[in-house]
Amino acid sequence: MADYLVDEMSPYHLQMSMFVTTIREQGDEAQRNHWLPQIEAWKIIGAYAQTEQGHGSNVRGLELQARWDPKKKEFELHSPTLTASKWWNGALGRTATHAIVVAQLLLPQIQTPSIDAADDAEPRYVSHGPHPFVVRIRDQDTHQPLPGIVVGDIGPKYGYTSMDNGYMLFNHFRVPHAAMLARYSRVDPETSAFQRTGSSAVVYGSLTNVRANIIMHARLVLARAVTIAVRYCSIRRQFKDRDALDTESIPETVVLDYPTVMIRVLPLLATTFALHYTGEAMYELYRRSRESIEGGDFGSLAELHSTSSGLKSLCTMYAADGIEICRRAMGGHGFGGGSGLVQINADYLSKPTVEGDNWMITQQVSNYLIKKMTAAVEEPHMESKDALSDHFRRYLKQRTTARPQEVITSNGTIDDTALVEAFKWRAATLSYQAYQQRIVQKQRWNTLLISLHKLSRAYSESILVTNFHSALQNSPLSEPTRSTMRDLFHLYALHTIDSDARTFQTTGALSAVVLDAIPDRVLDIMTQKVRPHAVKLVDSWAIPDYLLDSALGRYDGKVYEELFQKAHRENPLNRVTFNVDWRSSEIVKGDKDSEARILAKL
Amino acid sequence: MADYLVDEMSPYHLQMSMFVTTIREQGDEAQRNHWLPQIEAWKIIGAYAQTEQGHGSNVRGLELQARWDPKKKEFELHSPTLTASKWWNGALGRTATHAIVVAQLLLPQIQTPSIDAADDAEPRYVSHGPHPFVVRIRDQDTHQPLPGIVVGDIGPKYGYTSMDNGYMLFNHFRVPHAAMLARYSRVDPETSAFQRTGSSAVVYGSLTNVRANIIMHARLVLARAVTIAVRYCSIRRQFKDRDALDTESIPETVVLDYPTVMIRVLPLLATTFALHYTGEAMYELYRRSRESIEGGDFGSLAELHSTSSGLKSLCTMYAADGIEICRRAMGGHGFGGGSGLVQINADYLSKPTVEGDNWMITQQVSNYLIKKMTAAVEEPHMESKDALSDHFRRYLKQRTTARPQEVITSNGTIDDTALVEAFKWRAATLSYQAYQQRIVQKQRWNTLLISLHKLSRAYSESILVTNFHSALQNSPLSEPTRSTMRDLFHLYALHTIDSDARTFQTTGALSAVVLDAIPDRVLDIMTQKVRPHAVKLVDSWAIPDYLLDSALGRYDGKVYEELFQKAHRENPLNRVTFNVDWRSSEIVKGDKDSEARILAKL
Repeated sequence: MADYLVDEMSPYHLQMSMFVTTIREQGDEAQRNHWLPQIEAWKIIGAYAQTEQGHGSNVRGLELQARWDPKKKEFELHSPTLTASKWWNGALGRTATHAIVVAQLLLPQIQTPSIDAADDAEPRYVSHGPHPFVVRIRDQDTHQPLPGIVVGDIGPKYGYTSMDNGYMLFNHFRVPHAAMLARYSRVDPETSAFQRTGSSAVVYGSLTNVRANIIMHARLVLARAVTIAVRYCSIRRQFKDRDALDTESIPETVVLDYPTVMIRVLPLLATTFALHYTGEAMYELYRRSRESIEGGDFGSLAELHSTSSGLKSLCTMYAADGIEICRRAMGGHGFGGGSGLVQINADYLSKPTVEGDNWMITQQVSNYLIKKMTAAVEEPHMESKDALSDHFRRYLKQRTTARPQEVITSNGTIDDTALVEAFKWRAATLSYQAYQQRIVQKQRWNTLLISLHKLSRAYSESILVTNFHSALQNSPLSEPTRSTMRDLFHLYALHTIDSDARTFQTTGALSAVVLDAIPDRVLDIMTQKVRPHAVKLVDSWAIPDYLLDSALGRYDGKVYEELFQKAHRENPLNRVTFNVDWRSSEIVKGDKDSEARILAKL
Repeated sequence: MADYLVDEMSPYHLQMSMFVTTIREQGDEAQRNHWLPQIEAWKIIGAYAQTEQGHGSNVRGLELQARWDPKKKEFELHSPTLTASKWWNGALGRTATHAIVVAQLLLPQIQTPSIDAADDAEPRYVSHGPHPFVVRIRDQDTHQPLPGIVVGDIGPKYGYTSMDNGYMLFNHFRVPHAAMLARYSRVDPETSAFQRTGSSAVVYGSLTNVRANIIMHARLVLARAVTIAVRYCSIRRQFKDRDALDTESIPETVVLDYPTVMIRVLPLLATTFALHYTGEAMYELYRRSRESIEGGDFGSLAELHSTSSGLKSLCTMYAADGIEICRRAMGGHGFGGGSGLVQINADYLSKPTVEGDNWMITQQVSNYLIKKMTAAVEEPHMESKDALSDHFRRYLKQRTTARPQEVITSNGTIDDTALVEAFKWRAATLSYQAYQQRIVQKQRWNTLLISLHKLSRAYSESILVTNFHSALQNSPLSEPTRSTMRDLFHLYALHTIDSDARTFQTTGALSAVVLDAIPDRVLDIMTQKVRPHAVKLVDSWAIPDYLLDSALGRYDGKVYEELFQKAHRENPLNRVTFNVDWRSSEIVKGDKDSEARILAKL
């Protein structure tokens, strides 16, 4: 986890990365040769301007127009409405000199010469969908917006104050033909015809890479929150054990020993490892897909895109909710600035929305699963090209006869393979139900959205469990670390089951008997297996105190001393004395000027 | 809901209220006559200093000492450790001149004269538990802390910046005998004997009143968030219906029409009404209890205390989580300052912790329920004094023979009474299980904490459902409003069931058939019954735009115009031009002084 510093501290790096990646992947050779050296020398600073005030998720619905003028051989960028303003685009507000601007490409309808009207008549325009343009937006000398551009900072946000998210409108602003990135599609400057020269699906590649980064980032953020919560809750004591024989002489109980604190913090400790192994698997999947794509095989894109969508949704939810769960588990001091979770929470809360809204993008997962299930139903004997199709075909053969997984064996041990199978069975059953509703019964898509969202979550959880299990199988870890990692695997899996127990029952993945036994089993794993190692496990991440910036999460456990240090010695508020006497107009005691500076205190 | 202005805007009023209520309820006549006129004339400003750095929930564990000196007839306040610092106390940091200070009362052990040592020997001290003292902490003229007191502001917090939460330590600080509030217990100044003159349980009365206020406040906060989300999501459009016959000519879908948005926002709309009716019922319960207590009957205190604990936990969780659910349902703009939810969220997130941590206080509910169930088991034929005991006795008679409630009748209508009974049955069954585990099997309390927390939640939900149902029964509303309120009752109840479906099944409250039917039923109620009236329902709360302070939640729906107004015309950042050229040391373009003011830009 040595990537946390770069990951956390350079939002501008991320913005430039979107700008430069788009030019590198979608620019033709001339464009790349023109722009990349300037970018790499930081001569220009770029923003990526896609989202508009009225359109985020629905990229096809963007309103900004790029109208091709066949006579002047230029594009005219124009925002026809207020909702067509670019909005939220990072680094645009105050910093960027240039931007990738995504606009609807409007081309004149090609008309047959016989009915061609007078030369100066306005041609009819047809939209060819959104395309990226590289646009100079501010003067290099004055840093003022160019004439025809209105651009600025959108103002306060929940968090992420370090980023100048901007807005931008165009008023009939002209850019040259070369502004449109032309690797996969271009406008013929002579005929004004639209030419597609490659699969535009390839752009999902970089989106997927961004999402793999998001998963790894989620596990870092969660690791920070869990580190702080585990350390503080193992220092903090509150109440004596009411069942102790001698309550006089015993100390108060360490709060992490309370099951009500464990059940909030320890599954998140396990989840952090689950995210880590799936993040690694996603990088590997991305690497292999990228190889295939460079070799001209786009077959893996659909899986990559759907998997990354479902995982983005699930993992950022885990992290965003996890920070707050950890914060609340720390009681009163968790609300204080000393928790170190205030800023990270405010900043991170953008993540469930950006790069694909967490609820919206789960449709892409379900869409993919329904297609795969349809193929498996229609061609049950075809050889499966991937693991998912193979599983769906096996599922269909066993669907009506299979019995629930016996994840807890007769001698009380947990069968890891059965555990993974239970998650896969649940996801397959929900996929089959969705196939039935959508394909067989032809129900309207929008009425199915809630169950499709649940399907995506179930499938994504099965990926996390599968990757965690594989990592254990192939792990170079030695005992006893390996056993503890297996306990964490059990904790993540069983706690996840317990959170959606009824679905595991109704899909036939697990029996009522097993489900009834799980809460006690989770408590047992937490108390006996994970709690004793909890502090060492978070210490193993070795996140520096400097980065945690948390009085509660200090490595040396000097929580109360640090809280007092910050409040009493460092808080500048305590260096002046406020005059609370409302009958006097003096604000700061002893500051004779304060009376002159204000008109009235009340 | 005309109380929102006072409720929202005067945290100092709340602090003074704790200060003055404590003196009024726990001071003797002389103390009341001395302090109340000064308080009412705002000659002194008081804080309530109970919580310490090391002790919040466990009041009995407070460390600050109040040692009685029999010779000088004074108390000596002393903080023996750093963790004994008072911490978090509102208005203490910069403002208060006085404070109620809660400290361990230490009295010299009364010794038999025969073995009395020399007159100057240090007597042995015995703690008599925490007691409140009125203490002058700052000089009225200089506003400096008195010698022997260290006091200040604790510094940054998650939110609630308007409040100067403070810390305070005492170094052998002496206060007169009259400082200890003496209505229910006092120290005899002549004999140094501890005298109890009334039930200290009465102090729970004011705590209960605070908690009833918290419930009503929760419903106001939730009403604000729901108002904003409903209004914005009925303006915002995104994506066209993919099943529409003619996707060219139709507009994009209003996002509140998506089930995935409805399922997040509309149950919270229903929950707001549920909180309102239970808040009203709690005020009534408090009023009746207060009457009994004034008449010397303390019998209702236990019910009042446990009910208010469970409801405080549940209702503040609903509101805290609800703000964030609404914010995320609004997508990208929900993260912007224009949502109006940024500050309210940061401020409100203290509520799940203060006035009793939401996880900790549920033990008090379960403790009460176990006692009630034990009494019902042991004396099944005794006449029940309250509704809960009566229900437990009826439950015990039917426990093994009853069938699940048929909340959906054969003609598809919902049986409201059966719905309420299902909630009560679940709570009773969980109470009986807790009784079995704790009383019969004598399991350790701490091992049961997770299930006790679930029990408290189940019981509190049954109270909300019961009160909502009663309010409908006794409602002066006429049709069609009455029917819509009944739809909201159904939505709250069924959605709550669906969130914990397996427990309703395992406790035998509802059958699998009914539970399987609920998700579709919830969707149906949302789509057909609630969505058409959603905007009018939130408009009926009439929360002024001024208070909402939200571009997204404007009554007139001019969302995009207001976002643009705030970003482009009001944002002061856009009035200066930042110089992004890192090779120049000028920061603000055209500001020649900026170079002199900084040493280096990078």
